[in-house]
Amino acid sequence: MSFRIEKDTMGKVKVPADKYWGAQTERSRNNFKIGAPASMPLEIVYGFAYLKKAAAYTNHELGVLPVEKRDLIAKVCDEILAGQHDGQFPLVIWQTGSGTQSNMNVNEVIANRAHELTGKKIGEGEKTIQPNDDVNKSQSSNDTFPTGMHIAAYKKVVEVTIPGITQLRDTLAKKAKEFQRVVKIGRTHLMDATPLTLGQEFSGYVSQLDHGLKALKNTLDHLSELALGGTAVGTGLNTPEGYDVLVAKHIAAFTGLPFKTAENKFEALASHDAIVETHGALKQVAVSLNKIANDIRMMASGPRSGIGEIIIPANEPGSSIMPGKVNPTQCEALTMVCAQVMGNDVAISVGGTQGHYELNVFKPVMAANILQSAQLIGDACVSFDANCAVGIEPNHEVIQRLLNNSLMLVTALNTKIGYYKAAEIANAAHANGTTLKEEAIRLGYVTAEEYDEWVKPEDMVGNLK
Amino acid sequence: MSFRIEKDTMGKVKVPADKYWGAQTERSRNNFKIGAPASMPLEIVYGFAYLKKAAAYTNHELGVLPVEKRDLIAKVCDEILAGQHDGQFPLVIWQTGSGTQSNMNVNEVIANRAHELTGKKIGEGEKTIQPNDDVNKSQSSNDTFPTGMHIAAYKKVVEVTIPGITQLRDTLAKKAKEFQRVVKIGRTHLMDATPLTLGQEFSGYVSQLDHGLKALKNTLDHLSELALGGTAVGTGLNTPEGYDVLVAKHIAAFTGLPFKTAENKFEALASHDAIVETHGALKQVAVSLNKIANDIRMMASGPRSGIGEIIIPANEPGSSIMPGKVNPTQCEALTMVCAQVMGNDVAISVGGTQGHYELNVFKPVMAANILQSAQLIGDACVSFDANCAVGIEPNHEVIQRLLNNSLMLVTALNTKIGYYKAAEIANAAHANGTTLKEEAIRLGYVTAEEYDEWVKPEDMVGNLK
Amino acid sequence: MSFRIEKDTMGKVKVPADKYWGAQTERSRNNFKIGAPASMPLEIVYGFAYLKKAAAYTNHELGVLPVEKRDLIAKVCDEILAGQHDGQFPLVIWQTGSGTQSNMNVNEVIANRAHELTGKKIGEGEKTIQPNDDVNKSQSSNDTFPTGMHIAAYKKVVEVTIPGITQLRDTLAKKAKEFQRVVKIGRTHLMDATPLTLGQEFSGYVSQLDHGLKALKNTLDHLSELALGGTAVGTGLNTPEGYDVLVAKHIAAFTGLPFKTAENKFEALASHDAIVETHGALKQVAVSLNKIANDIRMMASGPRSGIGEIIIPANEPGSSIMPGKVNPTQCEALTMVCAQVMGNDVAISVGGTQGHYELNVFKPVMAANILQSAQLIGDACVSFDANCAVGIEPNHEVIQRLLNNSLMLVTALNTKIGYYKAAEIANAAHANGTTLKEEAIRLGYVTAEEYDEWVKPEDMVGNLK
Amino acid sequence: MSFRIEKDTMGKVKVPADKYWGAQTERSRNNFKIGAPASMPLEIVYGFAYLKKAAAYTNHELGVLPVEKRDLIAKVCDEILAGQHDGQFPLVIWQTGSGTQSNMNVNEVIANRAHELTGKKIGEGEKTIQPNDDVNKSQSSNDTFPTGMHIAAYKKVVEVTIPGITQLRDTLAKKAKEFQRVVKIGRTHLMDATPLTLGQEFSGYVSQLDHGLKALKNTLDHLSELALGGTAVGTGLNTPEGYDVLVAKHIAAFTGLPFKTAENKFEALASHDAIVETHGALKQVAVSLNKIANDIRMMASGPRSGIGEIIIPANEPGSSIMPGKVNPTQCEALTMVCAQVMGNDVAISVGGTQGHYELNVFKPVMAANILQSAQLIGDACVSFDANCAVGIEPNHEVIQRLLNNSLMLVTALNTKIGYYKAAEIANAAHANGTTLKEEAIRLGYVTAEEYDEWVKPEDMVGNLK
Repeated sequence: MSFRIEKDTMGKVKVPADKYWGAQTERSRNNFKIGAPASMPLEIVYGFAYLKKAAAYTNHELGVLPVEKRDLIAKVCDEILAGQHDGQFPLVIWQTGSGTQSNMNVNEVIANRAHELTGKKIGEGEKTIQPNDDVNKSQSSNDTFPTGMHIAAYKKVVEVTIPGITQLRDTLAKKAKEFQRVVKIGRTHLMDATPLTLGQEFSGYVSQLDHGLKALKNTLDHLSELALGGTAVGTGLNTPEGYDVLVAKHIAAFTGLPFKTAENKFEALASHDAIVETHGALKQVAVSLNKIANDIRMMASGPRSGIGEIIIPANEPGSSIMPGKVNPTQCEALTMVCAQVMGNDVAISVGGTQGHYELNVFKPVMAANILQSAQLIGDACVSFDANCAVGIEPNHEVIQRLLNNSLMLVTALNTKIGYYKAAEIANAAHANGTTLKEEAIRLGYVTAEEYDEWVKPEDMVGNLK
Repeated sequence: MSFRIEKDTMGKVKVPADKYWGAQTERSRNNFKIGAPASMPLEIVYGFAYLKKAAAYTNHELGVLPVEKRDLIAKVCDEILAGQHDGQFPLVIWQTGSGTQSNMNVNEVIANRAHELTGKKIGEGEKTIQPNDDVNKSQSSNDTFPTGMHIAAYKKVVEVTIPGITQLRDTLAKKAKEFQRVVKIGRTHLMDATPLTLGQEFSGYVSQLDHGLKALKNTLDHLSELALGGTAVGTGLNTPEGYDVLVAKHIAAFTGLPFKTAENKFEALASHDAIVETHGALKQVAVSLNKIANDIRMMASGPRSGIGEIIIPANEPGSSIMPGKVNPTQCEALTMVCAQVMGNDVAISVGGTQGHYELNVFKPVMAANILQSAQLIGDACVSFDANCAVGIEPNHEVIQRLLNNSLMLVTALNTKIGYYKAAEIANAAHANGTTLKEEAIRLGYVTAEEYDEWVKPEDMVGNLK
Repeated sequence: MSFRIEKDTMGKVKVPADKYWGAQTERSRNNFKIGAPASMPLEIVYGFAYLKKAAAYTNHELGVLPVEKRDLIAKVCDEILAGQHDGQFPLVIWQTGSGTQSNMNVNEVIANRAHELTGKKIGEGEKTIQPNDDVNKSQSSNDTFPTGMHIAAYKKVVEVTIPGITQLRDTLAKKAKEFQRVVKIGRTHLMDATPLTLGQEFSGYVSQLDHGLKALKNTLDHLSELALGGTAVGTGLNTPEGYDVLVAKHIAAFTGLPFKTAENKFEALASHDAIVETHGALKQVAVSLNKIANDIRMMASGPRSGIGEIIIPANEPGSSIMPGKVNPTQCEALTMVCAQVMGNDVAISVGGTQGHYELNVFKPVMAANILQSAQLIGDACVSFDANCAVGIEPNHEVIQRLLNNSLMLVTALNTKIGYYKAAEIANAAHANGTTLKEEAIRLGYVTAEEYDEWVKPEDMVGNLK
Repeated sequence: MSFRIEKDTMGKVKVPADKYWGAQTERSRNNFKIGAPASMPLEIVYGFAYLKKAAAYTNHELGVLPVEKRDLIAKVCDEILAGQHDGQFPLVIWQTGSGTQSNMNVNEVIANRAHELTGKKIGEGEKTIQPNDDVNKSQSSNDTFPTGMHIAAYKKVVEVTIPGITQLRDTLAKKAKEFQRVVKIGRTHLMDATPLTLGQEFSGYVSQLDHGLKALKNTLDHLSELALGGTAVGTGLNTPEGYDVLVAKHIAAFTGLPFKTAENKFEALASHDAIVETHGALKQVAVSLNKIANDIRMMASGPRSGIGEIIIPANEPGSSIMPGKVNPTQCEALTMVCAQVMGNDVAISVGGTQGHYELNVFKPVMAANILQSAQLIGDACVSFDANCAVGIEPNHEVIQRLLNNSLMLVTALNTKIGYYKAAEIANAAHANGTTLKEEAIRLGYVTAEEYDEWVKPEDMVGNLK
């Protein structure tokens, strides 16, 4: 492999000749061989590309960067956002906790690629634009990384997570309506209970996701606050007047999302409660999804020795040894995602508690975890929806059999003959393996006609909207 | 000890003669000897008292309960709320996961005490009101326990947690203003950085708590939804028309809090995402408080070999062996609370994932954890405020010494002489143990006059509001 | 209420006249009103009683404490251990993170009670023994609290947790043997699978608990290490030669447990990895118990619309509205305990990460959480055992019906006719609602005789030990 | 792209022509588009390669697989282990929770590659060896995946984690010895305390890691148990006599690690407590490492306004805006890893609780998390060691200044003049900004000579080994 020499304030470093990155990136590559290379999410890099471009525009408008430099920087940022330089960001999550090295990675790539764009060769001549003095102008790692992190997380939540959850929610709502009158046995404590409809069960899932979506959206305002303009410690040292508000406006324009400058930059650098807050809502959604997926796989269990009230799509052979078996694999993928999100929530909370003074140095781990959770929830909802939820059908025969068999219909008699007599009927049927009706008549508490009039499952499910 | 005989559908049970509880409570006492007795929080019992009274009023208004029974039930509920029967609720958290036994405990106590209020002796004669048929009328454990849980949690959050956080927040805001012009060294990565003011640091804490309070309040709407009226599985079986809306109105009136009936009762019984959601916000606040308390104890460290920039009140001898030592004990209590809340968040999330079909059976553990977290955060904020925050004072001498000593003021020269020359000055001062000014002049990059004009810490802290 | 005056290095304090505690306890009571009073577990106080007595004996043997003082201290410690002074320890968990105030609480109670034992009146005359100079001799809060914490946790684990788990494990082993030949349908992915015996299922639970017990016991060696003798920072300042080894011996003798002095006292004060380690094993057991309890409640589900393969004892009416319903309440209590233990594990881990320099100041929260987990697991295992596990019986009729109905017996044909043909049979039976035998013959792959010979569930369950 | 047709029991599927995988892999690729492709760790694939080869050998020895097939399978497994087919495993973690699809991916790749090795073209003619009937012979996903998971985790722990921790531990032990007599101020509650040596502090770290290594090794026995031979539900259906023991022996031989067959296969499929157990120990080590890294960054803080007692290597420019600043970046990377591991522990525990009946279906998420944690801890320890720990040096000047300045040396006088007088001296010096010696003499409690004789920091640090 051939190399060129790059330098920084600490001296010279050999860098692979075909890479745009510079000395600080290379140092980080060598000093942090922890886990797989390039684990720093590309979404963060793209967040940087938005903010570097916005900073260049702002710096130019406020008179501290010439138009030529602005345009060069912006052009490289656009290239990065187009995915043309994905191989230029080799750093890992497990670097400095401020993400300084990823900020410098972006600065260095922009500077060297810009040099090239002017027709020069990288490493030859004075750099056309300087990574620190130009690309990083009016910035610090301390405000750029959290800005990139918020951009990336916000985008992921609104572009992947919320649409994914919504897609699943809409399917479940459609099913709730379809199954509105499918009366079935209810179950509490996993035990038979009074009836309800399959649609009512599904309406509960819809309500969970509606609440989850609302909770998630509630967090977006905090997440839309950008640290940029705080520079090193939050005071905005070395930024031109009005920089913070303007740079946030540019970022909002470039991304099409309602970003704004953080009112308090000290918080924005030293704490990442916005990440904690949004991830808290993601975790809530994971809790909901886990319940939903669990219910569905239990209701679909069988084919002959389970509950079997619903039928889910058969997408793949379920077993390499047991022929004919079809498993609730989408439920499994989804609940594994939920377990991961619950773990990520702890990683993020631990990171969030650990800021010291002016800087939280758990930025990369917090960023990586929220991006993973947001992606996985969105993707898993879509996968679960497309490969499972849309195809769910009631198994009417089973539902009917279990319903009619149930002892819990006796509850309908509570208001007619009192709790204790109703219990006596149920207990007798349970003990004798008989039906409620048989026992109710035998015990002399109701006539056959009364029983038929009073015990109607379809009358026990309340108002169906 | 003397006993009387109580009975339920399973038969007779001996109950201590001086207790109001009945057969089902006694069974639970014997069947669940797990941890300390009476661990079920009294707040839950009080929540039940509100809802039993509201149910009695509603049942009466809807024509299914005579006024005499309504008034008897209401009277006992008022006694319970006045704390007169705290010793009548011996059950533990670790019972049935629906909290059925605590519901029955309340039903039984109300029935027996009501019997007594009519001048009769408990255990003698037909019960004046029946635990199931009267006190529990139009109810199920499955909708009462979550209702009681929401009442208790909501009250705790608005009566203890939010006021506690707000009290601390207001003190910190006052301090932020007082310390607005106290210029000090900043620190990032625990290393010296560019200056800011102590007031700016504190403003970051205020901003954290403001965001936390907002996040917490965002969750209250979900928490205000009550399951009552869903009865056994959410369908509202055995409730009179209009019951759910009306009973929630009564609860709102009795508590003075904006409770409302849950739009979807199936969710309200089968999932407790509202608890997950509110506790997520409590956990976020814990994350914030941990950061704040950590900063304060580090800034107060010393007295001679630490940072020592602030002085905190000395409330107690800090050590049984080291005389003269005063410790940041309030910070320690507060951060221990934060650790507990982070743990409780996992317990609640795990509980939240585990609902099956129509019922989540982790209600008591979820309720106990959110009540503990809400209480501890509120109390700890008040304690930290009263015994620490209000007394925080800057140690101006130390602050000034550390500020003047710092190498990071060199950053002020970045825009004057460029990043690399500024770095050279700082590096030289670092290596030679000299001051920045000495090196700046020696290296010939600035004159003494320029240095004094350009490097003014008070000019490096941005706009002070 | 009447008061007396107590004093410490900070001055005078009014203390309730009828209490033995002194100035520092009273200060803590007033300065830490966080949560319920007296939340510091009594087990910690008892741990202190053991160590104070041991310290007195050691100090005497090493010539620094007169025999009279030794005996007075020892006598009060014995009284404390006999539970005579439980009301004298009013402090909360949420105090200073070193537990200094609880150490002083014990010192003060011993000193004042000792004064009284000599026939004097508390608060009158010079204290017969001094809380600091005598009771706390050769000690610091920094080494006493972790010592008390280890004593308390070790005792709880060996006296409550391990016996509780073992009791349940033995019952499950007995059941495994009883059910050794009860062939039933297996289930993977909640779907029907090849058969096994109910005893084999239970043997898996036994194996889990055996591994859990082994894991728990593996941690006891670390937990048996005592910090005592490290005093303030681990150096053993102000202790006589040989003190640490000897005091641990006395503690071992008094408790009858194999405690020993920690080889490295710096670790023993600054970190509590031993607590993290032991709680990690408790959490592992909670994970196991959760699986076991979940299986049992699913297998017991019904009575008519669930799985119903086993029958569990009916201990209480399961529902206040649904007569005749019996719920898996012990499973619910146990799994709620598991959720709590999983949360406690995070609280303890967070606390464990946060030591600074020579002292971890999350001692009380770590102690309280491990004691709660150890108690709850032990108690819940006993409760689950006595009220559920011992009474578990197979429902042979259901087991037989589900087994014969199953399609998965087809796997027995894999080695006879190949995977694809076997799958064809199963798929056909599934599609046509027929039996495997019917389809196997119809498809011409086996004769009736071959089918009966090859497909014997009892031959599909492997070697039964 | 060109395709070929593969088929399974569900029908035909188009597969990229240049890939070895078959129908089931392709179905999974399409059905589980969750997160980045190919996220299933390659270590799991390699674990499969070991076990498929071992199964082939065992099947041959037990007479159920011809030698030609054995050798073909073994050859492809060797190729996989040599990394020649890394691009053939495109599946994600978030698939079926049994990992069935990854098992089939391996089966399909082996079958097709084996076909090719015989000189034939993939997709043409009858497959030389069958994925199910040959490669998967005597196996099920349900026993192969946990076997592959144990192989992968065990290897990672012994090859990466333990060596990494040990390397760091040895450096810290070397430092502890080097710094054995560097007396410095101790700190408890972040406040000045009695002195100790820097070597003693480091010895505490060594002791933590020694205990952590022991704890980790304690878990390996459970992790060495292999599920293979349990097949579908643990009964070993369709395996030849003696298969389980023999196949484990082959795996032990091929890996050089002490694997053995699990005594209880039902546990081995249905629960993954061994993963929970080992990860618990990894989490414990993370807790230790967090404490160590925190201490080191606090002790290295400065350069002028922090603690500054030690000097750590400067590996990179620390800030893009603040020249001359060097940050504790290795501490930051390491503590971020610790936060991740703490999160992963929750993900694993949640997964571990969720087994149902005969199968835990959270295998892939548990496997991925333990592999990540084991890798990250090992790598981060090596990185921290090489780039930080080995270069740690005391800053003797600062250490000496802080020590002499301290008020806590007064503790040396406790045993000479009593606790209260010693406190008086310290309080006076604190109030007056004077030295202890000045106040001790002024107050008339000691002479100058006595002071110098009694207050010697080097005499306050106990026995130095």
